[in-house]
Amino acid sequence: MIPPFSDLAGFRAALADMPQLDAQAALAARDHNGQLTKPPGALGRLEDLGIWYAGWRGSPKAKIDAPQVIVFAGNHGVAAQGVSAFPPEVTEQMVFNFQLGGAAINQIARSVGAKLDVVPLDLMNPTQDFTQEPAMSEDELVAALRAGWEAVDAETDLLVVGEMGIGNTTAAAALAHAMLGGHAADWTGRGTGVDDTALAHKTRVVADAVALHGGQGDGLECLRRLGGRELAGMVGGIAAARSKRVPVILDGFICCAAALTLMQTERSALDHTVAGHLSAEGGHAKLLEALCKEPLLDLSLRLGEASGAALAISVLKAAAACQSGMATFAEAGVSGA
Amino acid sequence: MIPPFSDLAGFRAALADMPQLDAQAALAARDHNGQLTKPPGALGRLEDLGIWYAGWRGSPKAKIDAPQVIVFAGNHGVAAQGVSAFPPEVTEQMVFNFQLGGAAINQIARSVGAKLDVVPLDLMNPTQDFTQEPAMSEDELVAALRAGWEAVDAETDLLVVGEMGIGNTTAAAALAHAMLGGHAADWTGRGTGVDDTALAHKTRVVADAVALHGGQGDGLECLRRLGGRELAGMVGGIAAARSKRVPVILDGFICCAAALTLMQTERSALDHTVAGHLSAEGGHAKLLEALCKEPLLDLSLRLGEASGAALAISVLKAAAACQSGMATFAEAGVSGA
Repeated sequence: MIPPFSDLAGFRAALADMPQLDAQAALAARDHNGQLTKPPGALGRLEDLGIWYAGWRGSPKAKIDAPQVIVFAGNHGVAAQGVSAFPPEVTEQMVFNFQLGGAAINQIARSVGAKLDVVPLDLMNPTQDFTQEPAMSEDELVAALRAGWEAVDAETDLLVVGEMGIGNTTAAAALAHAMLGGHAADWTGRGTGVDDTALAHKTRVVADAVALHGGQGDGLECLRRLGGRELAGMVGGIAAARSKRVPVILDGFICCAAALTLMQTERSALDHTVAGHLSAEGGHAKLLEALCKEPLLDLSLRLGEASGAALAISVLKAAAACQSGMATFAEAGVSGA
Repeated sequence: MIPPFSDLAGFRAALADMPQLDAQAALAARDHNGQLTKPPGALGRLEDLGIWYAGWRGSPKAKIDAPQVIVFAGNHGVAAQGVSAFPPEVTEQMVFNFQLGGAAINQIARSVGAKLDVVPLDLMNPTQDFTQEPAMSEDELVAALRAGWEAVDAETDLLVVGEMGIGNTTAAAALAHAMLGGHAADWTGRGTGVDDTALAHKTRVVADAVALHGGQGDGLECLRRLGGRELAGMVGGIAAARSKRVPVILDGFICCAAALTLMQTERSALDHTVAGHLSAEGGHAKLLEALCKEPLLDLSLRLGEASGAALAISVLKAAAACQSGMATFAEAGVSGA
C-alpha cells in the first residue's frame, strides 16, 4: 500500500483527513444484534465489539477472515546507557528467531489463525542516543512511518502491531512521561527484567531525556525525539489501517506509547483501535487510562512482540463471528422473553 | 467412553480413584519453559497454564489439537414457578438452534477451532420441582452422569462443558446456597434477565428449596436434590476428562455450581480444571472464590452455552503452543540476560 505522504507534513495532512466510523452501519449492526438468539446483552463486551467492528468495516455482518500481525524491530542508541537486562544484539537475534518460527508470537499468531510479518528497520543503524540528541531526523522518522504504512496488506481486515527492540521500554517511558507528565518513575518499569539498581538508573535516563526534549512540539515531534524506528513503524501501520477502515488491536506499554503520539497529534486518530491487554509492565494501566481504552485481556504478559494483542484477536474474531453468524429469534423459531 | 460405574456408589468410587497431575512432567515442563526465548516470566499466566497443561497431559511439550465443547441441555420442574424471563420450550428450541449452527456457541467454537457437541437430556421429562421434592431420583442422576461421561470423545485433549436449560440459574443458586451458606440473595441473579419483582420471587424460591433440602448429604446428594440433568451431565463430563488426564475449562455460574458438587464430594476433583471467565451473573465471583479459581477472561458474558469457557480455549491453546513450540535460547542462538 503506497503511502500518501513523503514528508512529515504530508503524514500530518493524511491524519487530519481520515475516515470515521460508519454510523449507519453501526446502527444497523446494533439493530441486528438485538434480534440474535440470546438474552439482550448476554454476550457482554463481545456485543459491543461486534457492533464496533461492523461500524468500522461498514457492514452489519462483517467477518474477520484475514487478521495480520506485524512485528517491527529497531535498535536504540539509548541502549548504550545500559538500560536493558539484554545486550543490543538480541534485537537482531530475535528477528531471526521470528523468521524461523521460534518466538512466542509465532506460536500465538498461528494459534489464533493470523498471518505474521516481521519488519526489521535499519537494525545496523541504531537511533541516536536521545539523552544527547533527538533519536531520529525527520527523514528517518518518515522512512519508518512509511515502512509501517507499507507493511499493511491490502486484504487485512484486522491489524495487530507489535515490536522488538532492546532498550525500547526506555523510549516508551520517555514518550509517556513527555506527553503525560507525572514523574519519570511513574512510567519506568523493569522491561525485560532489570534489577533495582538498573531500574533506578533507567529512571534517571528517562528523566534526563525528558528534561532535554520535553515540551517541544506535538506527538509526532515527541516520537522523533524520544521514540525509535519500530515505534514509528507501529504508528505508520495504525494510520494505514485507519485509512482503509481496518480496526487495530493495540499491544502493551510500548505499542500504546507509540499510539499515544498519534492521539496527541490528532485527537480521534485511535478511534479504530482497542486495547488488547493490560501488560504487567509498570505504567501500562495509566497509559491505557490516558488512551481511554479498557483492555480485553489481563494475563500478566509483558513480552511485547505483539503477543497480548495477537491473543486478543481470538476475542475480536469471536465477537465478529457472533455478530455475523448467529441466527435471529425469527430465523431459529425461538420464543422471545 | 464407557463409564466405570452403574450407580452412584460406583461414581463415588471412581472419583476417589482418579489420576493426579504428573509432577515429573510438570517439573520437566517448568525446566523447558525456563529455556525458551523470552525474559523469565514475560508470558505471565500463559507460562503457568502451559506448564499445568503439560503436567496433566504427562508431556513437557503437550499440544492442543482436539479441543471439544459439549453443551448439555435439560428442563427443570422449577421453571413452572416462573423464575425465568423465557418460557420452558426455549430449551428445546435452542437445542435445534445449536444443531443448525445458529447460536453463539456455534460461532465461538468454530472461531477457536473446537468441535461442538450438543447433548439434550430427556427434555420431554423435566426434573421434579425441587421446591416440592428432590429434582432427580438416584437413577435419573446416574443416567445424566453417564451421559456426560460418554459424551467425551476418545481423542479430546481439552474439554469445555456448558449448559442450556430454562430455569437453571435457579438450580445453580440453590446449589451454591446449600453448599456455601450465606443468604439466598447472595447467589440469586437475573439469569436471562428477570426484573426486580421476578428476582425477589426467584430469591424466595431458592431460599425455600434450600430450607427443604439443605444440609442433607454431600455434593452429589445436593446435585440430585437441587440440580438438573444438564448440571449432572457437566459433572459426568468433568469426571470423565479427569479419568484420562484431560484438562477442563469451566464456564460460568451454572457450570461452576455443578463443578462445586464434585469438589464437595472429593476435595481434589477439580484440580484438572481452570475457570474460563468471570460471568456477569451475580454470585459467580463468590463461587469462583470457593473453587479457588482465578478466571482467565472477564468480558461480562452471562449467556451460558459454554460460551465464556469456549472463548478461553484460545488462551489455553496459545499457552500450550508457546510451551511446546518456542525455540530455546540455545536453539535460536539468542544471547541471555
